[in-house]
Amino acid sequence: MDNKPSQQPVRPQLPEPTLRRLPWYLAYVTMLPPDEEYVSSTRLSRDLGVDASRIAKDLSFLGVKGKTRMGYNVAELENALTAFLDFTSRHRAVIIGAGSLGAALMRDNGLSQYGMEIVAGFDVNPALIGTQVCDIPIYDVADLAAVQRSTGAPIAILTVPYQRSQQVADAAVAAGFKALWNFTPVRISAPDNIVIVNTSIYAHLALIYNRMNSAPDNQ
Amino acid sequence: MDNKPSQQPVRPQLPEPTLRRLPWYLAYVTMLPPDEEYVSSTRLSRDLGVDASRIAKDLSFLGVKGKTRMGYNVAELENALTAFLDFTSRHRAVIIGAGSLGAALMRDNGLSQYGMEIVAGFDVNPALIGTQVCDIPIYDVADLAAVQRSTGAPIAILTVPYQRSQQVADAAVAAGFKALWNFTPVRISAPDNIVIVNTSIYAHLALIYNRMNSAPDNQ
Repeated sequence: MDNKPSQQPVRPQLPEPTLRRLPWYLAYVTMLPPDEEYVSSTRLSRDLGVDASRIAKDLSFLGVKGKTRMGYNVAELENALTAFLDFTSRHRAVIIGAGSLGAALMRDNGLSQYGMEIVAGFDVNPALIGTQVCDIPIYDVADLAAVQRSTGAPIAILTVPYQRSQQVADAAVAAGFKALWNFTPVRISAPDNIVIVNTSIYAHLALIYNRMNSAPDNQ
Repeated sequence: MDNKPSQQPVRPQLPEPTLRRLPWYLAYVTMLPPDEEYVSSTRLSRDLGVDASRIAKDLSFLGVKGKTRMGYNVAELENALTAFLDFTSRHRAVIIGAGSLGAALMRDNGLSQYGMEIVAGFDVNPALIGTQVCDIPIYDVADLAAVQRSTGAPIAILTVPYQRSQQVADAAVAAGFKALWNFTPVRISAPDNIVIVNTSIYAHLALIYNRMNSAPDNQ
């Protein structure tokens, strides 16, 4: 793999809930006043609404331990979280499906702040192929394998119409991509060595609507 | 509440994992050939990678039961999922933070396909206030309460810089919003009667990077 993390330690595979909480901890410590050297586990727990024992377990994966009566050293915690979450490395990705959501993600510079660099887009629409969005070139999906080789990008972001999700996932795997970030509402499958992460923006709409309809205040 | 779902049945509050799977089932059944009247639970399970017993439990919340040796009636299943997920109703929302991700979401017509109508945006940047993104007007955040009243939008989408997440969440609650869709990496808090749904796009980056670094193929 072109972007083999040669200088990075091999990381343990963490439970998904832990990985979802780590960015909360990082955002929290970066917002602390610069003169605070320690943050107590009680305060972390109260402000984040997460059990202190769970926080301790999460941070133990990173080798971070609190000190009795002091809590966590803020600088140490921030450094460990930053290093572990790997937001400062450069992770190349392509976007397959340069329509509405795909083009929106290309315009979102938040991704690059978290280490993801979009190097190419793909579409089947002749009107889009050959154009650029925020300086990112849009290619024909037929060129997936060639662009994967030339860019070495290991990550493919799927923002295609859901009817084409599995077909495009198969094509991305065949083209050499190692991770699929699936924004479609379809449950895609891939070989075991391929990383699949689902971000179901639209599934979260179902969650919002359901919670609103079942909230006591809204009846 | 202005958009009180008067014609809609009170829905049970479903477990979050179930709500995440329901859109998979809906996408799946809409992709079946039109002449297929039944889909077996075995086939659903195999194609979606979800235990048949879990599927049965999920669908029982919707009052849908399979028939022995036949499976699920496709039309009944699609109707029940469509009605339950409520993607065909109109749910008004505003976006607070019309920067990169916020503007991207305003441009994404996928949201409206799933029933969410963005009626206003808010920002603190004088260069953005008074402008429009895809015909959606951008207001000063100071006007949150006034615009909430005039539009009756119950949902506020938070796409502000993470340092301002809690402050903006508090302002949205004070302005009368009933649900907060939080795209920031901060753990926000709100009174119990307020619905909070977190969509951690950037937390998912941590998941992708971790899984790639710990995948046997990538060492």
